[in-house]
Amino acid sequence: MHLVVLAGGVGGARFLRGVRAHARDVRARVTAVVNTSDDISLHGLRVCPDLDSVMYGLGGAADPERGWGRADETWTVKEELRAYGAQPDWFGLGDRDLATHLVRTTMLTAGYPLSAVTEALCHRWQPGVRLLPATDDRLETHVVVSSDDPQADGGARSEAIHFQEWWIRHRAKLPADRFVFVGAESAKPAPGVTEAIANADAVLLAPSNPVVSIAPILAVSGIRDALRTAGGPVVGVSPIIGGAPVRGMADACLAVVGTECSAAGVAGLYGARAEDGLLDTWLVDATEDADTRVDGVEVRAVPLWMSDDDATAAIVAAALAPT
Amino acid sequence: MHLVVLAGGVGGARFLRGVRAHARDVRARVTAVVNTSDDISLHGLRVCPDLDSVMYGLGGAADPERGWGRADETWTVKEELRAYGAQPDWFGLGDRDLATHLVRTTMLTAGYPLSAVTEALCHRWQPGVRLLPATDDRLETHVVVSSDDPQADGGARSEAIHFQEWWIRHRAKLPADRFVFVGAESAKPAPGVTEAIANADAVLLAPSNPVVSIAPILAVSGIRDALRTAGGPVVGVSPIIGGAPVRGMADACLAVVGTECSAAGVAGLYGARAEDGLLDTWLVDATEDADTRVDGVEVRAVPLWMSDDDATAAIVAAALAPT
Repeated sequence: MHLVVLAGGVGGARFLRGVRAHARDVRARVTAVVNTSDDISLHGLRVCPDLDSVMYGLGGAADPERGWGRADETWTVKEELRAYGAQPDWFGLGDRDLATHLVRTTMLTAGYPLSAVTEALCHRWQPGVRLLPATDDRLETHVVVSSDDPQADGGARSEAIHFQEWWIRHRAKLPADRFVFVGAESAKPAPGVTEAIANADAVLLAPSNPVVSIAPILAVSGIRDALRTAGGPVVGVSPIIGGAPVRGMADACLAVVGTECSAAGVAGLYGARAEDGLLDTWLVDATEDADTRVDGVEVRAVPLWMSDDDATAAIVAAALAPT
Repeated sequence: MHLVVLAGGVGGARFLRGVRAHARDVRARVTAVVNTSDDISLHGLRVCPDLDSVMYGLGGAADPERGWGRADETWTVKEELRAYGAQPDWFGLGDRDLATHLVRTTMLTAGYPLSAVTEALCHRWQPGVRLLPATDDRLETHVVVSSDDPQADGGARSEAIHFQEWWIRHRAKLPADRFVFVGAESAKPAPGVTEAIANADAVLLAPSNPVVSIAPILAVSGIRDALRTAGGPVVGVSPIIGGAPVRGMADACLAVVGTECSAAGVAGLYGARAEDGLLDTWLVDATEDADTRVDGVEVRAVPLWMSDDDATAAIVAAALAPT
């Protein structure tokens, strides 16, 4: 049995721990297709927040409190960079984490694709899941923001900033017009991605941010088509419980794309595979959203709080239960 | 009054602290022309050991015990790189030090020459001395080493390795045939170097390693000529006391170039400016080498132990005393 999961970072990592637990029970193997569109170059280092969150999370190295980065982290390099006045200073690069970026950047500079680099890094962490970046090519989420500018036409100026600047520096508070997935048209799926989706016994959409974690994966040319024509069912897990995101600031992103912050709203973004969309099945939270209905999609209501790996594995089991 | 000092790393830093102390007394300004030929790229980062030793040493940030690197250093990144199996693992990159290399590498990648990068880094450290790299161009000391190889002609194989590999990894124990200053023919002096030498009231050769710290500076095209035609005197300070180097492994390097490890031996390498060399004056240690004679060079015997800044300033005062 082969399960494929499309996932973002921290929430994706938590979900994948449950997928892995379930997969051990049913002797399945798991491939995670991970978002790369919030990757960023900082101080000359290539940082892949979602891949690292998944790698650390599955490798038992993630900080349990912060959710991102390494456990037992120290911040000496960051303090020193600040003392030099090096910009940007709003992104937290821990010392342990930094070694990952050094190894990755060295390998990328030597010509290895990100998929090969990720495989090499995973030799250390043994995540128990095959991690594939959605693409080896450039794909970057930019956010088009507007700000008052008396000098500009209409008194406002529009500019695109890197997603991380909007997300981390501005805490998603800067009014945003839209997201642009730079490079999506020409980016190709990383080796193995479409094959994995095509041949999977089931494809799961993790309860990650639908707008800036799952949508950029789907924007890579060929991935949406692979899902549309996949042999197994496509099952999504709602990232919204009772009108609020399980974690993170997905509500801010949903507002930008004009989608209601609800289980039904997110399902509408993905659409029904029976029509022009992706979903065969949609898991909503039984305690809050049990009444959700989505045209053309089988809705299953189960408890969606990923309180621990067992609870998450139960969600995965429910997602994979026969229709 | 303007003093110019040609210097290597740790010994150069110690000497320059004395030069700075003396310069404050006599209201002189100081320019240090620092060796760059043992610079190396490690894990994608450009590391300049001599420039950093001087910068940290004069900036009050050097580790007093080790002599190189930062005080209060931590080694988290190094341990993590080792856990990844990243090579090379024989060069010690501390966490605090690493931030310097990140800032430098980012600036170099952005197109700034090393001299501009060094000036920017010195904004933080305020060394009180103008630090100039000998050159902004590629200049790398390689060591030609031989090893037994039954497959090779003559049963031995010859290869060139980076100086740092010979120096740090092999502790200068690997038999070496010669040093090659790769790039020296085409390397140009960094902006300001030859002008500083030409117009200096005196030029001092620090008691640094003559073979791998001072010689590569002199190998940059134009620097030797600038010293030959300098308006002020050229005064060298012997790095040898009683037949042994003051610090480091200069004896191993002198052996490679077939020079006796003595104050006279090193003076012979530099030569007399009255003939085809560089030296007007040569300082030797009064307690050990007072009998040293060098044809065409005024020899001054003074205590040469740089036990503290005051002692070193006294050496500098003796070097600059009128003939």
